[in-house]
Amino acid sequence: MEIQDIIKEKIEIINSGLFEYMKHQDLLQGSIFDAMSYSLFAGGKRLRPIIMLLVCDMLGGNEKEALPFACALEMIHTYSLIHDDLPAMDNDDLRRGKPTNHKVFGEALAILAGDSLLNMAFEITSSAETKAPKKTLRAIKELSRASGALGMIGGQVIDIESENKEISHDVLLKLHSLKTGAIIRAAGIIGAVLSGASEEEIKAVDGFCLNLGLAFQIQDDILDVSGNEETLGKPIGSDIENHKTTFVTLFGLEKAKEEVGLYTEKAVSSLSIFKDKAKNLISLAYYLINRSF
Amino acid sequence: MEIQDIIKEKIEIINSGLFEYMKHQDLLQGSIFDAMSYSLFAGGKRLRPIIMLLVCDMLGGNEKEALPFACALEMIHTYSLIHDDLPAMDNDDLRRGKPTNHKVFGEALAILAGDSLLNMAFEITSSAETKAPKKTLRAIKELSRASGALGMIGGQVIDIESENKEISHDVLLKLHSLKTGAIIRAAGIIGAVLSGASEEEIKAVDGFCLNLGLAFQIQDDILDVSGNEETLGKPIGSDIENHKTTFVTLFGLEKAKEEVGLYTEKAVSSLSIFKDKAKNLISLAYYLINRSF
Repeated sequence: MEIQDIIKEKIEIINSGLFEYMKHQDLLQGSIFDAMSYSLFAGGKRLRPIIMLLVCDMLGGNEKEALPFACALEMIHTYSLIHDDLPAMDNDDLRRGKPTNHKVFGEALAILAGDSLLNMAFEITSSAETKAPKKTLRAIKELSRASGALGMIGGQVIDIESENKEISHDVLLKLHSLKTGAIIRAAGIIGAVLSGASEEEIKAVDGFCLNLGLAFQIQDDILDVSGNEETLGKPIGSDIENHKTTFVTLFGLEKAKEEVGLYTEKAVSSLSIFKDKAKNLISLAYYLINRSF
Repeated sequence: MEIQDIIKEKIEIINSGLFEYMKHQDLLQGSIFDAMSYSLFAGGKRLRPIIMLLVCDMLGGNEKEALPFACALEMIHTYSLIHDDLPAMDNDDLRRGKPTNHKVFGEALAILAGDSLLNMAFEITSSAETKAPKKTLRAIKELSRASGALGMIGGQVIDIESENKEISHDVLLKLHSLKTGAIIRAAGIIGAVLSGASEEEIKAVDGFCLNLGLAFQIQDDILDVSGNEETLGKPIGSDIENHKTTFVTLFGLEKAKEEVGLYTEKAVSSLSIFKDKAKNLISLAYYLINRSF
């Protein structure tokens, strides 16, 4: 099976899961579920849950038990985008080619829709049936750490405080290894933990995700200057307009492309202990290098 | 021991716990911890964790194992206040006599400080050592449900959508049983679950919290018209100014006071199965009737 088809299959599994969770609506609070669903089904790449499910496949984990966490990862990613887009933050009007959440539902509901998605991530993961409650608890711990002040939110804080400043390579690496990287790493770690992986295997998966996350982010910076507005669903050049330091502004386009390749190779070699079983994750890594969206 | 002294003792335990959690700071993201601590240590009543610890005491639970959840309840309460105060929501400048979080740290950091406190609540509860992981998971489930779209946030949505409208008694009850009530109920239920209570005992504690929560909210409405600005730490009459329907605007001051008494009696009688062991929770209920803050 080609990686594109595997990705398509996983996206269907993830979307069905998300749809099931969002079905439980309450008439009095209907509007909050509308706001949550709007962003949740706005056509995301589902990268984080895909990584998680591929790690589960590789390690012989149970996909059904992993699904609540896969959905939770996407809920947390979506909440972070809704809050990032707010006028007080990046003040973005478009996301994935559609008006941002607060543009459609107003700021108050957008803040609460983000809050609710974050809550729901923990609700569905703590409510899922489990035969291994200790593993489930560890997975929730990894998820909450990665999304908190020492993880994704910490990266966002560094991002906000770096506005209109030239930052160093070290700070830029820290920013992205937290803002994008923390949840991507959590996706891999959780997939491994739920599959009963050894600490050595968890570490190898983490090494893959850490490097994949950086390759992914640098590719994002490259697409921001050389991508296609329609394919990306957002305006080109927004980083420059917002005076943001990126891997492209620091190193130039050519060197940035080289870095994507280098981090991808590092990611792939982290998986060597899994030999042939890692082939889908490796295909995913190479697939992402060549993405245009 | 008088209830005032018991409350003081519990507040000290809770504050030490919160302080321990907030010590872990990171230089690069220091400002987010400052923003979180500012609101967390702004002098709250700690009502929710106090209820939880008193339920634990009543049922012979282990206070040390309960402490992460007690702190988590206060983190979630604090996050909800920070987000409620935002310009896009209630647009409040003062909270507990001090400038609100966004007035001090700016809107972006206030949103992220709220997000971080919510995350941290799940991080500390899922990271705590536990001999009973199934109970811990159930407690996390109760916590996340209570704070989500079908709990506290749902109440906030009804509140926002009821602005400048006269709402019915039924809708007002639903609003408050969610917005304030859901977390107060979760406090009791979690205390009971962690102490290994039977389903019958959990139900009795829930009945107490449900009614206590309503008594507490009606008393809040009463203090908003008849309280002392300095003791309350916020301006008097803000509900009327914001055209909010309250128990006082619906029923008048005298009838509202009667209702506080009635709900308190209902709360107290819910605890009858615990006989003498419920005395501190009962004292707390009567203490809250007479509060002026």
